[in-house]
Amino acid sequence: MPKIVDHEQRRGELVEATLRIIVDQGLSGATMRDIAAEAGFANGAIKSYFASKSDLLAATYLFVFEATNRRVELSTAHLRGIAALRAFAHEVLPVTPELHDEARVVLSLLAEVAQSPDHARTTRATMVLWRTWILDWLRQARDDGELAAEVVIEPAADVLLTYLLGAQTSAIIGGETFDFAGFRGQLDYVIARLADDHDHSVGKS
Amino acid sequence: MPKIVDHEQRRGELVEATLRIIVDQGLSGATMRDIAAEAGFANGAIKSYFASKSDLLAATYLFVFEATNRRVELSTAHLRGIAALRAFAHEVLPVTPELHDEARVVLSLLAEVAQSPDHARTTRATMVLWRTWILDWLRQARDDGELAAEVVIEPAADVLLTYLLGAQTSAIIGGETFDFAGFRGQLDYVIARLADDHDHSVGKS
Repeated sequence: MPKIVDHEQRRGELVEATLRIIVDQGLSGATMRDIAAEAGFANGAIKSYFASKSDLLAATYLFVFEATNRRVELSTAHLRGIAALRAFAHEVLPVTPELHDEARVVLSLLAEVAQSPDHARTTRATMVLWRTWILDWLRQARDDGELAAEVVIEPAADVLLTYLLGAQTSAIIGGETFDFAGFRGQLDYVIARLADDHDHSVGKS
Repeated sequence: MPKIVDHEQRRGELVEATLRIIVDQGLSGATMRDIAAEAGFANGAIKSYFASKSDLLAATYLFVFEATNRRVELSTAHLRGIAALRAFAHEVLPVTPELHDEARVVLSLLAEVAQSPDHARTTRATMVLWRTWILDWLRQARDDGELAAEVVIEPAADVLLTYLLGAQTSAIIGGETFDFAGFRGQLDYVIARLADDHDHSVGKS
């Protein structure tokens, strides 16, 4: 078994080196040689772990999605309805420096998605998973009487999912209202429009 | 003057060839030589029109944004408030095959944005313009009494803009609810939640 562990660990080191390169300089100029150097590997050695740059990228994007999904599962484990939805969105929206770096990685993935059916499939699997989660939380919110009456669950889920994807882009394009505080404010607004606040409010001061 | 006209026309032909290549096969494998061939140019000739692939890409993205903005200006010329907002979103959302192709071009641009401050600046200028339009239309809707009371204009504009950016992505990732009909349904829902329909409705049947 040690050999397999070692192999997985080396692949992990190469994935992490790829992530650092995307964040620091972008992928377009980066070669397998650059990635090997960043990871401290001899140039030839990288081929034992990934047959091509495309394979390495696919593993890198899978790593990012799996890390996000693990974070979401942790932060929503004891929540349901609107509270779970808010916790989820907070893990995906670029509201911290780490998540802003992740947005840059996601954006470079999206370019691959535009060009490769394989990458599109990986991404679609995560999007289908996220959509299922969002639908479940919206239905729980409806069951618990915390969803605004005007919310229609299916389009609301698709619009929210598309907004969260778009936030990876608007964070990198930038602009004054797309900083950490801006996204937190947008999230508060999105949640407020989903939640049935105005009817049950304790009183507007 | 004929020489300048000719020069601009040749640049336009190269931009159109680049667009076709992005739609058909993606940019990642495409060289300046491929683009020259697609446009029917000798390989060396392209350098008289664009010094680098990056320059050609910048011109291509500018072309796409300008074409979109012209379409928006035409379709919103005699509209204000919610009607203008709906017409604008309909020009930007991937609700037709042509706009779906455009989404693929926008997505390949976004990868460049992730890696190049120059491309980010061009894109940011368009996003700032769109944000100004959206803010103006939302304010008109409020003035005309057609905006739902719960809408807060600034975050509503940022969320809508981010949703429209995200739609370029979700269209290409795909999935059953992100087809033309899906986006039209989402747009109807987004507009319904912005508009003050429920108070002034002619009666729910």
